[in-house]
Amino acid sequence: MKADIISIGDELLKGHRINTNASFIAIELGRIGIPVSRIITCSDDPKAITDTLTASLGEAELVLVTGGLGPTRDDRTRTVVQELLGRGLVFEHESFERITEIFRRRGRDVTESMRDQAMVIEGSVTVPNTKGTAPGMIIDCGDRFHNHHLVLMPGVPSEMEAMMKLTVIPFFAPRSGAFILHTPIMTIGIGESQLAGMIVNVEDGMPARTTLSYLPHAAGVSLMVSTSGGSRQEVEAENRGVVEAIVTTVGSFVYATSEVTLEEVVVRILLEKGLKVAVAESCTGGLVSSRLTDVPGSSGCFLSGMVTYSNEAKEELLGVDAETIQQQGAVSEAVAEEMACGCLLKSGADISVATTGIAGPGGGTSEKPVGMVCVAVASRSRAGALQVEASTFSMHGDRHTNKVRFSEAALSGLLDRLRSVFS
Amino acid sequence: MKADIISIGDELLKGHRINTNASFIAIELGRIGIPVSRIITCSDDPKAITDTLTASLGEAELVLVTGGLGPTRDDRTRTVVQELLGRGLVFEHESFERITEIFRRRGRDVTESMRDQAMVIEGSVTVPNTKGTAPGMIIDCGDRFHNHHLVLMPGVPSEMEAMMKLTVIPFFAPRSGAFILHTPIMTIGIGESQLAGMIVNVEDGMPARTTLSYLPHAAGVSLMVSTSGGSRQEVEAENRGVVEAIVTTVGSFVYATSEVTLEEVVVRILLEKGLKVAVAESCTGGLVSSRLTDVPGSSGCFLSGMVTYSNEAKEELLGVDAETIQQQGAVSEAVAEEMACGCLLKSGADISVATTGIAGPGGGTSEKPVGMVCVAVASRSRAGALQVEASTFSMHGDRHTNKVRFSEAALSGLLDRLRSVFS
Repeated sequence: MKADIISIGDELLKGHRINTNASFIAIELGRIGIPVSRIITCSDDPKAITDTLTASLGEAELVLVTGGLGPTRDDRTRTVVQELLGRGLVFEHESFERITEIFRRRGRDVTESMRDQAMVIEGSVTVPNTKGTAPGMIIDCGDRFHNHHLVLMPGVPSEMEAMMKLTVIPFFAPRSGAFILHTPIMTIGIGESQLAGMIVNVEDGMPARTTLSYLPHAAGVSLMVSTSGGSRQEVEAENRGVVEAIVTTVGSFVYATSEVTLEEVVVRILLEKGLKVAVAESCTGGLVSSRLTDVPGSSGCFLSGMVTYSNEAKEELLGVDAETIQQQGAVSEAVAEEMACGCLLKSGADISVATTGIAGPGGGTSEKPVGMVCVAVASRSRAGALQVEASTFSMHGDRHTNKVRFSEAALSGLLDRLRSVFS
Repeated sequence: MKADIISIGDELLKGHRINTNASFIAIELGRIGIPVSRIITCSDDPKAITDTLTASLGEAELVLVTGGLGPTRDDRTRTVVQELLGRGLVFEHESFERITEIFRRRGRDVTESMRDQAMVIEGSVTVPNTKGTAPGMIIDCGDRFHNHHLVLMPGVPSEMEAMMKLTVIPFFAPRSGAFILHTPIMTIGIGESQLAGMIVNVEDGMPARTTLSYLPHAAGVSLMVSTSGGSRQEVEAENRGVVEAIVTTVGSFVYATSEVTLEEVVVRILLEKGLKVAVAESCTGGLVSSRLTDVPGSSGCFLSGMVTYSNEAKEELLGVDAETIQQQGAVSEAVAEEMACGCLLKSGADISVATTGIAGPGGGTSEKPVGMVCVAVASRSRAGALQVEASTFSMHGDRHTNKVRFSEAALSGLLDRLRSVFS
């Protein structure tokens, strides 16, 4: 079974809205072994929708459509499909009750428009909308389209996502006849080409049903090992073999083999070990604290963060020595170390991290160029001894990318220390 | 002139990579008056590429392709286009020099693969690659395809973006014969349906060549007013008329009519007025500081930020009274006010903002549910008087969305104070 995804909406064609729905649907279909052949974005225009649907239904066994399913003038998908398939509408009682209930809670009367939204195409399986009003539909398109299936969903991501998870995936999973497994390998501190060079032998010897994708992002690169086949056991074994071969080769750069962020790994270890963390930031401007506190439950391990942009703030809030700043410069390993130690002592944390660097675009010199960052990690051993160590890194992005990479280096420093000292 | 955008790549079909290239291209084309009819993602498979190209070149005057243009086995776009158009390759000397220079700098020898990358399709206009190796091409596809144009570019965003800006847009701008103007209207503190209700009259009376799009995002909603026509003067006048009508109606929620972020507006005003800001954060966990320091030049106005998650940190770092926390709770307007005042006094800033709330998923009660946030802004008037004021908001997102909305409320509070007191 192969699928096409059709996203309807002029706002997508103008580029002001990025098509995240298609990615979500593709990932969900991939999990049940249905590969996507094409993703097509077309306009709200009825002729454009008709042409696109006709072409896709001729080739793909499964066509999933988002958008154009709602109460406004722009919402023409249902009408177009009716005409294409020559079918009428039927009243769907459960959807009507759900819709009127939602509006009643908002204090509105029942209108003709609500009744209209509860009409679905003849012969379709209704897909309940648990997050909004208009229901979705799963339609067997009949002989003319080789009994290919059409799925209609709204374009609102939360509504579509709930429909996929609750109804569409359970409907098609037993019909796919295949199994696909994707395993992510999350890395830090290594670029795409270096990584590719290290695992070239693994890639050359990879079994035929497994593919490897490189997913570069602002802070580095992730790998995705994908295996497809008919039997779950075979697929899992083949996938595991490749993942293990890669982790063995580049293990020191791997922080996880599941979809987790670096901050999630750090917070999980902190909570497991009952340790408290504090953060002192200059160039990252609060981003390290913000990433750590993005993790639910981080209040159990995060004590405080200090964003000390000015030299005065470094001195007053963290107790950095004015002389160190004068002699070594604010961006120096010595200052990073004093920031981390000051932060540890003032907060009473078990471990702390400090950043000082030049995010750009201004502020760089030939000696200390834009993209340079000093990261220091301080911790107290179980015996009470203070340990602090700083490292310097060079990044080559714009201001925002540099901030992200700096914060990645800081979280990575925390992770290394947590693994080496507190293990 | 109408355009199709074709994105080639199996990684896009798997959903692990979101297609941001297509949005970028659509926005750039929109600026020179070329609307996009379809955005199609297809696989690396030569037959899929051939079918997709043939269909698009039959309909669209301009077809822009990204992906499959590089040195690896997956890169089949050039070969497919050669076969489709029946053309050979020619050696492009300038590209070859650029490529060898890049590899020479990396200490590598000239190889056959580099020579191959410098080959372009006969009769094409070379699009220099200023950010990578393989050049792009602009191809007049001849009689068979009604002299429609095909543009080939790599899938790497930075390479494609530079090609669009430096070569492709300048090439097609004089050929488009139309003019499109998009004006964003950036709002805060108002939801999509409320906004739509307020401007329903403006929308109903809108001239035919102007359209209005709603662009909801985590923190609220932006509007985009788009006008197209043949004459720049007419388009500008019509667009301006609609923008002014909307701003007049919902002015208090509008913070800008250009693509700027709230933090950019706040930092610009701070720098203009020579004021210093400090931030005290609980539930936003550093996000307010991070957003302010995302803005280049923010070091000229940002003094310090304190992320005080624990009650102890609020007391020790900001001087919040333990009794206030005990009596009112850590999430209260009284604590927010003490945080803002403590932050202002300790940092010596002219204005400060503080947040305390419940981002979730845990920690909510019936009285203080998840999504509740108290924001306080403190400032000193020119005469030296301290002014502090707190507000409470309720958000309804997940942890990350709540953090973003909380930070938006904090930045919005800063903006209001900057406009009212320091004007």
